[in-house]
Amino acid sequence: MNRIKQIASHLNPITNTQPSGDIGLIGLAVMGQNLILNAADHGFTVVAYNRTVSKVDHFIENEAKGKSIIGAKSIQELVDNLKRPRRIILLVKAGAAVDAFIEQLLPYLEKDDIIIDGGNSHYPDSNRRYEELKSKGIHFVGSGVSGGEEGARYGPSLMPGGAEEAWPHIKDIFQSIAAKSDGEPCCDWVGPAGAGHYVKMVHNGIEYGDMQLISEAYDILKRIGGFTNKEIGDVFAQWNKGVLDSFLIEITRDILYYNDPADGTPLLEKILDSAGQKGTGKWTAINALDLGTPVTLIGEAVFARCLSSIKDERVAASKILPGPEITKDAVTDRKQFVDDLEQALYASKIISYAQGFMLIREAAKEYGWKLNNPAIALMWRGGCIIRSVFLAEITAAYRENPDLENLLFNKFFSDAITKAQSGWRSTIALTTKYGIPTPAFSTALSFYDGYRSAKLPANLLQAQRDYFGAHTFKVLPEFASETLPKDQYIHINWTGRGGDVSATTYDA
Amino acid sequence: MNRIKQIASHLNPITNTQPSGDIGLIGLAVMGQNLILNAADHGFTVVAYNRTVSKVDHFIENEAKGKSIIGAKSIQELVDNLKRPRRIILLVKAGAAVDAFIEQLLPYLEKDDIIIDGGNSHYPDSNRRYEELKSKGIHFVGSGVSGGEEGARYGPSLMPGGAEEAWPHIKDIFQSIAAKSDGEPCCDWVGPAGAGHYVKMVHNGIEYGDMQLISEAYDILKRIGGFTNKEIGDVFAQWNKGVLDSFLIEITRDILYYNDPADGTPLLEKILDSAGQKGTGKWTAINALDLGTPVTLIGEAVFARCLSSIKDERVAASKILPGPEITKDAVTDRKQFVDDLEQALYASKIISYAQGFMLIREAAKEYGWKLNNPAIALMWRGGCIIRSVFLAEITAAYRENPDLENLLFNKFFSDAITKAQSGWRSTIALTTKYGIPTPAFSTALSFYDGYRSAKLPANLLQAQRDYFGAHTFKVLPEFASETLPKDQYIHINWTGRGGDVSATTYDA
Repeated sequence: MNRIKQIASHLNPITNTQPSGDIGLIGLAVMGQNLILNAADHGFTVVAYNRTVSKVDHFIENEAKGKSIIGAKSIQELVDNLKRPRRIILLVKAGAAVDAFIEQLLPYLEKDDIIIDGGNSHYPDSNRRYEELKSKGIHFVGSGVSGGEEGARYGPSLMPGGAEEAWPHIKDIFQSIAAKSDGEPCCDWVGPAGAGHYVKMVHNGIEYGDMQLISEAYDILKRIGGFTNKEIGDVFAQWNKGVLDSFLIEITRDILYYNDPADGTPLLEKILDSAGQKGTGKWTAINALDLGTPVTLIGEAVFARCLSSIKDERVAASKILPGPEITKDAVTDRKQFVDDLEQALYASKIISYAQGFMLIREAAKEYGWKLNNPAIALMWRGGCIIRSVFLAEITAAYRENPDLENLLFNKFFSDAITKAQSGWRSTIALTTKYGIPTPAFSTALSFYDGYRSAKLPANLLQAQRDYFGAHTFKVLPEFASETLPKDQYIHINWTGRGGDVSATTYDA
Repeated sequence: MNRIKQIASHLNPITNTQPSGDIGLIGLAVMGQNLILNAADHGFTVVAYNRTVSKVDHFIENEAKGKSIIGAKSIQELVDNLKRPRRIILLVKAGAAVDAFIEQLLPYLEKDDIIIDGGNSHYPDSNRRYEELKSKGIHFVGSGVSGGEEGARYGPSLMPGGAEEAWPHIKDIFQSIAAKSDGEPCCDWVGPAGAGHYVKMVHNGIEYGDMQLISEAYDILKRIGGFTNKEIGDVFAQWNKGVLDSFLIEITRDILYYNDPADGTPLLEKILDSAGQKGTGKWTAINALDLGTPVTLIGEAVFARCLSSIKDERVAASKILPGPEITKDAVTDRKQFVDDLEQALYASKIISYAQGFMLIREAAKEYGWKLNNPAIALMWRGGCIIRSVFLAEITAAYRENPDLENLLFNKFFSDAITKAQSGWRSTIALTTKYGIPTPAFSTALSFYDGYRSAKLPANLLQAQRDYFGAHTFKVLPEFASETLPKDQYIHINWTGRGGDVSATTYDA
């Protein structure tokens, strides 16, 4: 296009001056509002737009008052107020709404403008949007944003991926508003296409796991230990000074201390024990199944929410299905009990993160993405829901060896889990005896014991499959022979009755 | 079309006589060949076709010799040799091959002819094929076929669903060749569209679970009990006379007794402990996640196969990651040890089937299918891989109450699991202490203890989600008040810092 038109389109039609907006944001729910206030605090001029325009007015007249925030009453106004290349963040409900706003924006955008989806989009959608917008000369960035209300307001974890050409134009803003960890911003370029949302998905899956582990610990302290909420709060306060030091442990402490102003009793005990699971945790578990990676802890965490949601059925079952009585002397040494539980939580958490990074490793292979493991760990180090001291150790482990095959192969973590083992096993022995459900603690231990097993009983699975379906098996190299050749698919007629046809085209 | 043409098309162009074929079958892999031989044994004339025609010749000259089996060298010949309405079974690899053969068949078929897909197709594909063929006047049936080599040859379990108009035309053949259980055929009409393949999918998922449970039992007997393969075979032989009496227990006994003719040592111990999982077990776990149903045991069984498949990584890990030493006195009372293990296996199996039927119940709701639970249990009772005495009890439970909300609400099963509990808990206490992985046993126990918990710690999850993401929570009815109204979404400012905007459009 000719230069005149370029300048013209670059002028604000209302004031006829250069537009002053550094970045635009669509969607004024809690996350959007807080991210805008955060960016304004860092000296950026933000143009705010929302489909329901009254929300814009209310925001400008209240939270945004006196800040470098411009309210836009239309897409046109939003775009006209932005410097070029225009940088527009969408913080709207994942799915159709994102596509709808992209459609509305396109007529007003020009080559090299940047659309950033900061919602919880599913990474295949981000892959698609990246390709579609690339063909139109628009740079698409799918960015994970974590930290909830607080994070968005005071420094979230940002996980941007997509069109790498966009990174130089958003790096300054993103790294300024992002959380800092030991002086480093918890934001870096993740990778191509939907990689940013993929890593955010795994982050959320891990978040599901951490929350489930903490819930199991609370349940054990309450039902086996007979601890009061205040006492459990004290335990979490103490844990928050040690290896478990993290945002989720900290807020759990606050929650346990929080009493209902109406009667001064713990509010937590009045909350319905039914949790939803329609989001990213489920996607992570499904992706793990698709990639054939044993991310068992996140899977159990998602299913635990499913079980919690059938409350009426559980109440009915509780009247029919008996369990062991929890005796007064279940816990003799309270300190040992709490210390064992801390080790169980720590060890299970190590397993969960090891599984999460196994999944990221598989995804990089499967989708041909070059992903930066140390950067991912650092992005999760601060700002986001799973931020913890723990993630500093993971960052260190991957900086020491970016191609680390498994977190458990790093000395810090193999030492830590070795030390944690006895408390971990004692805790599960106790919950098994007294009938307290520990799906996440237990699957973590089973994974650990399976992962460190040079031989698993899968040889029997293979024999069974060959017996009933002629699916064939391979022989262990050390037992290879003329009749059992190495690396070949072998079928045995186990019964003398079956035929010698192997199931090459049929899979039972 | 006019009658002349009808008759003409009904005559065999080669012999000009009435075609004699009762049913056609495409795909001469092991399952196809055996199903043909089975049908021929029951007096039906079967027309056999295979893409690689040489396979047809070989089959006709060998296994099929002297039987009522016609070899077809082309689709035309296959169709011309069939009585009308033509009944054609596809037993080819699930996926593109099924669509390809349907395309090849269509030009030769006439209104009301029947295409039956007997492969392991994914039920959404069967939903699609049912609709596509319906629009062309062809009746599509998606039928689960289970029983492997042996079952197909001597009586499989058949789970047909789809176009109900087809049932009267295939009922006689299907119920004749199907396995019989207490005189009843293990084949009945499942339901509409892809319901037949859906039920087969769940069957296979349960099969994954049963196989994993048996493998864990074998591993425990071997590694904790120090039993020889002969001794373990004796245990399975004994179990096969009790509540665990089933096909999979029986073949496990045979496998444990089977020695390599080359040196007389157990062949099982020479088989590579690495199992694949790309099939229906995975689909079941993904479907469970999608429907929000806690089918945890199948999930763990699938992940256990994933873990088995990374053999090299496990071998490396086994050298780094320590575990408890298994002492000689780990098992003092061998009989008690074996009896406890039998109870653990039985109880875990009850949980797995309860979860499977929970999933079927959800699917019926979600997809609007009327499914016949007693019939499903009966179809699995005999012929298929999971056939067992156990399924007779499930059939009885659903015949007593077809709308039974959960298997665990049936007296037989609640009594059984109550009785099994102490052995179940002792076994897991033992494996936890000695470091033997039991992902399936453990998840079953966690599910049981969670299912019978009127209160789970999900109240903490909800508090956390409201704390960091303003996701709101509901109050337990018994604690409803003016400030905490019943059935409403409540958001609390837990910190005094966060805003009062709730996350209505954003989901962290």
